[in-house]
Amino acid sequence: MSDRERRWRTLSSETLLERWWLTLRVDAVELPTGAVIDEFHVAEYPDWALTIPVTASGEVVLVEQYRYGVDRVGLEFPAGVVQPGEDPLAAASRELREETGFTGETWQPLGRLAVEPARHTNHAFLFVARGVSREVEPDPDSTEDLRVRLVPVGELLKLIENGEIVHGIHVAAFFWAYQRGLLPAGGL
Amino acid sequence: MSDRERRWRTLSSETLLERWWLTLRVDAVELPTGAVIDEFHVAEYPDWALTIPVTASGEVVLVEQYRYGVDRVGLEFPAGVVQPGEDPLAAASRELREETGFTGETWQPLGRLAVEPARHTNHAFLFVARGVSREVEPDPDSTEDLRVRLVPVGELLKLIENGEIVHGIHVAAFFWAYQRGLLPAGGL
Repeated sequence: MSDRERRWRTLSSETLLERWWLTLRVDAVELPTGAVIDEFHVAEYPDWALTIPVTASGEVVLVEQYRYGVDRVGLEFPAGVVQPGEDPLAAASRELREETGFTGETWQPLGRLAVEPARHTNHAFLFVARGVSREVEPDPDSTEDLRVRLVPVGELLKLIENGEIVHGIHVAAFFWAYQRGLLPAGGL
Repeated sequence: MSDRERRWRTLSSETLLERWWLTLRVDAVELPTGAVIDEFHVAEYPDWALTIPVTASGEVVLVEQYRYGVDRVGLEFPAGVVQPGEDPLAAASRELREETGFTGETWQPLGRLAVEPARHTNHAFLFVARGVSREVEPDPDSTEDLRVRLVPVGELLKLIENGEIVHGIHVAAFFWAYQRGLLPAGGL
């Protein structure tokens, strides 16, 4: 059976909630097996873009912020929503500049990952920016309470192991970039 | 300012939707900066557990299934929801058995990751099971349309690079386990 033949068929779809950054739907769906799920909730989130920014001296630029969903402060790479019509690389570069004041010299795409492919429609686009340096003052949104932290790349694994970097896609991006040889070697 | 001082204060909270596996809330919150966000949506999903199952001959047991949110067939490690009161390791072991018919010999915890720490409350608990073998017939839920695939560990990177394994936390789990030396060496 091909991918196409394994698709679920949408029997009906109702929008429960609509905001600029989230549309929540409930669909009735029929599986190729004939099984019907009366209520399958789908969250249409926008795509977002993430950058692993590395300075010439081998430090990574991280942002530290309180995360309400899990009720704790976490460390993440600079990231944010891809605006309608915006290129993911342009979004990554804009978010890096807004959140940290850093700009990148050479950009390398890693790939894209799904946040929760069963129920969410969106992807995160991942980039590594090397030779980054501070060009301007950060200009975060008024609802962002960010601190910028520069961390030697060799310390990132410890931050993952002790749960300070806990966001799954950020952890995936770090290991993927390391495996590709895009981060300074000898770090881990 | 300590982590505690950086917490957002909940001014009000309204439940918009309540299902056994999802509660959607909208909160009004005040940041330590004094900024107020009138509508901050939070999804209370249950935790889930994931297993990287490795056979004695160095193959990884994957499940292939259609994912409605991103409208494509994807490859993932066996995973599923931690039931109320259930231990994450027990959930991982149960899901491995139900989805694939395999059981594990030695279990190793990797850690836990957040799916989307800003707006989701849940975590995924990650495990590696070695020496797994097929003990029983798979017994998936009636709404699951799964195929079990055994893949040499050395081919997983290719499946990530070409987007067949696209779920962010699954990709993070694979690289993390590899970095910890829990997967057969020489693979990548």
